[in-house]
Amino acid sequence: MKKEKGLLLVLSGPAGVGKGTVCSALRQENTSVQYSVSATTRSPREGEQDGVNYFFKTREQFENMIEQDQLLEWAEYVGNYYGTPIEYVRETINNGQDIILEIEVQGALKVRERFPEGVFIFLMPPSLAELRSRIVGRGTETEDIINKRMTVAKEEIDMMKKYDYVVENDQVHLAVDRIKSIVTAEHCKRERLIEKYKELVEVD
Amino acid sequence: MKKEKGLLLVLSGPAGVGKGTVCSALRQENTSVQYSVSATTRSPREGEQDGVNYFFKTREQFENMIEQDQLLEWAEYVGNYYGTPIEYVRETINNGQDIILEIEVQGALKVRERFPEGVFIFLMPPSLAELRSRIVGRGTETEDIINKRMTVAKEEIDMMKKYDYVVENDQVHLAVDRIKSIVTAEHCKRERLIEKYKELVEVD
Repeated sequence: MKKEKGLLLVLSGPAGVGKGTVCSALRQENTSVQYSVSATTRSPREGEQDGVNYFFKTREQFENMIEQDQLLEWAEYVGNYYGTPIEYVRETINNGQDIILEIEVQGALKVRERFPEGVFIFLMPPSLAELRSRIVGRGTETEDIINKRMTVAKEEIDMMKKYDYVVENDQVHLAVDRIKSIVTAEHCKRERLIEKYKELVEVD
Repeated sequence: MKKEKGLLLVLSGPAGVGKGTVCSALRQENTSVQYSVSATTRSPREGEQDGVNYFFKTREQFENMIEQDQLLEWAEYVGNYYGTPIEYVRETINNGQDIILEIEVQGALKVRERFPEGVFIFLMPPSLAELRSRIVGRGTETEDIINKRMTVAKEEIDMMKKYDYVVENDQVHLAVDRIKSIVTAEHCKRERLIEKYKELVEVD
């Protein structure tokens, strides 16, 4: 029987929507989904660890990775680089395991170009007002940065049309349940299973 | 905000695969999914109740329903008519509620013609051998009928390509979980949600 490839799941959405929180909660559920760690040039926030939350790089190091084509995607976002090391992603799905990337919107769209068969999930705030209060609530940003982020967020919501699924992050555990359901449903998609069953009919 | 239509879910698959058992188990879980009751001319099996499992009709009654266009689909299958009364289905989805039909393969394909936006789920046995033993295990059919059903089943598996999802019925509770995940995932599909979110961006 043919080995089924793993799913490439891409979780994206506006800055401040809670991608990191949802991804951590999903990780704690001990699903069989693997997690990809992104590389970035932004400074670590309180509690973030190198190699766990991100690979923290200097601009020079990051530009070297770009030149050597070691990134599945990369983007500059509010003055910093973000990118996904390609090798681990490819190995995981070829091994039949699912992997999830948690990335910015620009990066997600680049991944779509290289992996059109990926499952693209857009994480949405219940309202833009809610999004604003979450960004402000972080309490570490100036008014100017907040306004810039809101403009970017509106543009990103417009990019929703490039995604397969939209998951509202009204409550983290609900968002996690929805993502788990999407993973299960995707494994039941006819186009992923038809080869397996064709064989069954022919052999019998 | 625009009212979202309910999902029309169609659960189908070869005779003997366990559509009825899975549908009953799903019903016991108290999900918000409504159940459609089919009309049929076949005789009630042990324990089946009119108006609950099926509306049991004479051939004459059934043919009247066909003439008056009261059926969403109907088909003749192993010498009996099966069909879906249309009115309740339409009301339910227009009300924003999900409804599930449990029907034979021929009928499902006719529903697809009228409701291409429906969610079509093909329930599969883990193997054809397993399917055969289930049909035999029912213990109420002759060898001739069993062989005829096996031939039909192989043709039906070939029809899998017309469905959106394939759910293996290895264990009833697993099949039910998969179907519930499909319902959740379908509600997260971008094309179903984009209108709601467009409004959000414009209002803000």
